[in-house]
Amino acid sequence: MPELRKDPVVGRWVIIATERARRPGNFVDMNSASEEGDPAGCRFCRDRQSSLYADENVRIIPSQEFLSGHNSDLSHHRHGLYEVIQGVGRHEIVIETPRHVGNIAELSLEEIRRVLLSYAARFRELGKDSSLKYVVAYKNHGVNLGEENSVHSRSHILAAAVEPLRVKQKLWGAKEHFARYNRCVYCDILHQETAEKKRIVWETEHFVAVTPFAPRFLFEMLVLPRRHHCDFAPGVEGVEEDLAKMLKTLTRKLQTGLDNPAYCLVIHTAPYRREGEHVRRDTIEKEYHWHMELMPRLTRVAGFEKGTGFYICSVPPEDMAAYLREVVVS
Amino acid sequence: MPELRKDPVVGRWVIIATERARRPGNFVDMNSASEEGDPAGCRFCRDRQSSLYADENVRIIPSQEFLSGHNSDLSHHRHGLYEVIQGVGRHEIVIETPRHVGNIAELSLEEIRRVLLSYAARFRELGKDSSLKYVVAYKNHGVNLGEENSVHSRSHILAAAVEPLRVKQKLWGAKEHFARYNRCVYCDILHQETAEKKRIVWETEHFVAVTPFAPRFLFEMLVLPRRHHCDFAPGVEGVEEDLAKMLKTLTRKLQTGLDNPAYCLVIHTAPYRREGEHVRRDTIEKEYHWHMELMPRLTRVAGFEKGTGFYICSVPPEDMAAYLREVVVS
Repeated sequence: MPELRKDPVVGRWVIIATERARRPGNFVDMNSASEEGDPAGCRFCRDRQSSLYADENVRIIPSQEFLSGHNSDLSHHRHGLYEVIQGVGRHEIVIETPRHVGNIAELSLEEIRRVLLSYAARFRELGKDSSLKYVVAYKNHGVNLGEENSVHSRSHILAAAVEPLRVKQKLWGAKEHFARYNRCVYCDILHQETAEKKRIVWETEHFVAVTPFAPRFLFEMLVLPRRHHCDFAPGVEGVEEDLAKMLKTLTRKLQTGLDNPAYCLVIHTAPYRREGEHVRRDTIEKEYHWHMELMPRLTRVAGFEKGTGFYICSVPPEDMAAYLREVVVS
Repeated sequence: MPELRKDPVVGRWVIIATERARRPGNFVDMNSASEEGDPAGCRFCRDRQSSLYADENVRIIPSQEFLSGHNSDLSHHRHGLYEVIQGVGRHEIVIETPRHVGNIAELSLEEIRRVLLSYAARFRELGKDSSLKYVVAYKNHGVNLGEENSVHSRSHILAAAVEPLRVKQKLWGAKEHFARYNRCVYCDILHQETAEKKRIVWETEHFVAVTPFAPRFLFEMLVLPRRHHCDFAPGVEGVEEDLAKMLKTLTRKLQTGLDNPAYCLVIHTAPYRREGEHVRRDTIEKEYHWHMELMPRLTRVAGFEKGTGFYICSVPPEDMAAYLREVVVS
């Protein structure tokens, strides 16, 4: 069974996905992994296993790949210095369309809207399991994550008994900002960015896409809803079509302007807040603001920040935004 | 001039290396960058510019690539929500050998020892500049960082006016552990790992190499000095040859056992602690423990943790360590 293990220094939880049971020696060839373009070999075209969610376009199926278990399995151990939680969490695969296409940019607005609705439905449903603290939806386009090598457009929902370190940092930063200014830091970013305009990539009625002031990656983008809400599922309600337009525009800009790079798209939402739990329910709702991150993969330089902790961005975000604004998409 | 910019939510400082002045459109081909094996075109073979440090083997030269400036340039601005420091820091290139070879594994013990001595000398020298808070030495083997595409064995020293977020996390974690147990967390890791033995990759008289209990990457290794010291330069004194043996053994194990993967090697040392500065000088010396990290790059899956913050490791570190222990190197 997969486990969650905690780093004893920085407190980072890591998933040890033992179920995948690769032999160490098999990793030598990982760098030459390639994607499979043939629908005949695609299990997401063929798959007829029972779904957790389904409509005309979207199907969500459970996966045992990274995390599995439910409440009754919860076991939290200590081995001396070290902490372990035995595989508590869920991994679900969102098959975004019955068609064998590989990019959000190729989905219709209606298909993207239905994907967003499916995320919201699963976020709500998973929230009923009190062993789960945190849920994230993400999409890796053009990146093989050890799973089936198919280009079939899909994304993932991961729910776990712990929050990742990065999410804790965001929550903590938002809390600090609120304590100091009595304002949401993301609302402040929206305010400054829409006034300055120089890092804006695209705007819709309900969303603003910017390159961050201090980006980690080339052409990284932050998609902020104008309306403050800490939570994706209620926050996106009624504006799914507008967000679909935004996502299609941004992914088409990447496709056209940067030669269809691999990218990662993530929805960041507040951790679950349940009645009677020791969580900062009221404060988190004021402090945090759900958002999306879109991170293209344009360079092989990722080794640098792994080690030193310094991210280096070789183009100012103002130039990235100006470049992407100019890319015309239909 | 390059700048340091601070993320307004999580407080991460990012280097915006504007000096490199790449046009955004030029990034399309970055994924196909290749290394140059020809000594005739290698500027590290030819280069005769004045050195910051030199002995028979090692030469250290200044670089303007990422950071530049010195104390008198220090300018710290705020733009509304955002904070900027104008390019304060140093980037130096350590040319590890006059020979055109590309891997630590191919250097002699004496050559590696001299590289370690050169780091210590530069760490001490850079400490005299009171604008610099933090210094790191790192080596990217087989990874092109936008610099000249030469395999000539070299490493980097980066000193900056700020600490990276990852370093802050380590310092904070070590402080928390010390506050609770009155012991250094790295000494505790050493104690548990040498007792359990199952994650040990290699031991020398003065150093222990383990795979971390909660690794972020496949075959990631942590090299811990047995003797507690927060600081690399005094900590490594007198045991440089022993550390050279350790690094040569580990890099040869990677080369032989995992088909010469790209890797990143980093020295983590405490931030500078100067008389009269508001730093936790006494406590940091008890709490922190210098160490090295060795991170091979075996997969293309790095996109995952960028987005979700969850690291997934598909082989348990106990299996990684067992595999590496078995790899015989001469």
